[in-house]
Amino acid sequence: MSHEIRIVTEAELRGAVGLDRALVDVIENAFRALASGRVVMPPILSMEIAEANGEVDVKTAYIPGFEGFAIKVSPGFFDNPARGLPSLNGLMILFSATTGLVQAVFLDNGYLTDLRTAAAGAVAARHLAPEAVETAGVIGTGAQARLQMQAAHLERRFARGLVWGRDAARAAACAAELSASLGVPVEAAADPARLVAESQLVITTTPARQPVLEAGWLHPGLHITAMGSDQAGKNEIDPAALAAADLYVCDRVSQCEALGELRAALAAGLWHRGTPPELGAVIAGSAPGRTDAEQVTICDLTGTGAQDTAIASHVRGLLGTAGTAVIA
Amino acid sequence: MSHEIRIVTEAELRGAVGLDRALVDVIENAFRALASGRVVMPPILSMEIAEANGEVDVKTAYIPGFEGFAIKVSPGFFDNPARGLPSLNGLMILFSATTGLVQAVFLDNGYLTDLRTAAAGAVAARHLAPEAVETAGVIGTGAQARLQMQAAHLERRFARGLVWGRDAARAAACAAELSASLGVPVEAAADPARLVAESQLVITTTPARQPVLEAGWLHPGLHITAMGSDQAGKNEIDPAALAAADLYVCDRVSQCEALGELRAALAAGLWHRGTPPELGAVIAGSAPGRTDAEQVTICDLTGTGAQDTAIASHVRGLLGTAGTAVIA
Repeated sequence: MSHEIRIVTEAELRGAVGLDRALVDVIENAFRALASGRVVMPPILSMEIAEANGEVDVKTAYIPGFEGFAIKVSPGFFDNPARGLPSLNGLMILFSATTGLVQAVFLDNGYLTDLRTAAAGAVAARHLAPEAVETAGVIGTGAQARLQMQAAHLERRFARGLVWGRDAARAAACAAELSASLGVPVEAAADPARLVAESQLVITTTPARQPVLEAGWLHPGLHITAMGSDQAGKNEIDPAALAAADLYVCDRVSQCEALGELRAALAAGLWHRGTPPELGAVIAGSAPGRTDAEQVTICDLTGTGAQDTAIASHVRGLLGTAGTAVIA
Repeated sequence: MSHEIRIVTEAELRGAVGLDRALVDVIENAFRALASGRVVMPPILSMEIAEANGEVDVKTAYIPGFEGFAIKVSPGFFDNPARGLPSLNGLMILFSATTGLVQAVFLDNGYLTDLRTAAAGAVAARHLAPEAVETAGVIGTGAQARLQMQAAHLERRFARGLVWGRDAARAAACAAELSASLGVPVEAAADPARLVAESQLVITTTPARQPVLEAGWLHPGLHITAMGSDQAGKNEIDPAALAAADLYVCDRVSQCEALGELRAALAAGLWHRGTPPELGAVIAGSAPGRTDAEQVTICDLTGTGAQDTAIASHVRGLLGTAGTAVIA
């Protein structure tokens, strides 16, 4: 029996959905559900294509109460820039959670992933950053660095931004763009230690395999969101920093143990506090979040299929008549 | 940078590709590659949605030398028939193995999976069935029972067919359809023991969780292809039959240990012959196949991502201008 499937391109999706507080609420709900224990979220399917310097990850999750579930495919092919193509691409497919029928194919080239990742940063800031953030800093200069600063600004109206990256020209360009989009002064920092020292909220958005943020730089009243590490081997935060912080929170413990900052801390023998809380438990109030403006908090984001199901379901409601209907 | 993606519906795919020896050759090549050790095939991603009596599996594989790789999503929602919908649905996505860009979305509702599964049965018959098959029998009466008999007939021109299922009316209908499509008499068998006794080639295509084929029914000159078991808990063949056969062959050992007939035999403590050969090794000649017309052989098919990549690549070459081009 044939049924209608909506095919939606990246351009159409960009017209339908952007980074705003409504989306942050949607992603917050996904984390709350994840901590309830009722979400079904299998381990990430991951395949490496070494000959092409490529990899592909598949994520999914079923969230009870949601009409649909997403399957998200994220290829990363790191020789693409030399061909004039972006490294990251992919699509999301939305299925009915009642019948399994395909409802929509979002040919987003990673746009929805960028949004739901940024929105998770906003959720972390909402629940863990100090109430007063005068300066926010980002380590990293890519597309996600820009989005994470925009997301942080939705939750904490900081008056000044800082950017640091290994390439000073890229850092300057990122700072200039952020100044314009946020309407507050954003400067390139001379070094990452200085950036951390002057910020109350720091986001790391790098593919680093050696820490870019040292434990000795932690200071009272600092929140760090580390969102770059999504594979075993990546590591942005000095493993000693996790234990030194007052509170360390995972998006998903099982993923952070395998792919996140926690993996590096465990491997270094520097984590002895047992199972960390998840962001969803902090949101739900079943685990304590920040209890004091002077605390140091760290949130480790590896990216979850629950976010994909949440954003795909949200987008479907915003589409109107956008896209092409195919009878299949 | 936007690029063209071909969206192809089930009806368009049915117009472009069917079950023939060219497809069997394609799937044979996939198994040969799989046994070479150079294919990258991650474990199946599997998610259960218990509230909806549903599940979804995701398979993929990278085959060196292929321009693309497929990701195949197979939802199975077993309350669908009561809604007038088929239980099995899904789609396949073909990606460039060089850039990771989406090349085509095949909205096949499981049609390509049906074909590549049937073609694997033909490959098993080609390499393991006795040269002379007078009678072929199938246990099971669904769509795959029909396709498997057609596939077997491509490789062994049997003069008579038998069908057995728990529902006699469905078995009679399946037999009548097969008589018409194959052009040879196909009858419903009175019982499965009789079917096996009279056949030289038997295919099992059931979702059985208790064996439907007993070890005591094995007889000289018999080949069995068991393709129903694709999940832990399913079991079509008496575990004692695997050890009693002269040769037992897996499509993929790691999958058969977890999901196939081998799982049940291992669980029953009835398998002591070490690692069985894979079908691809038999095809490549690196493991012996049938060496004698009187041997008893069993092939255990759980379904591999390599088959999906192979059929998706094959179909792309057959499409011509079929489908809808979307710029994404």
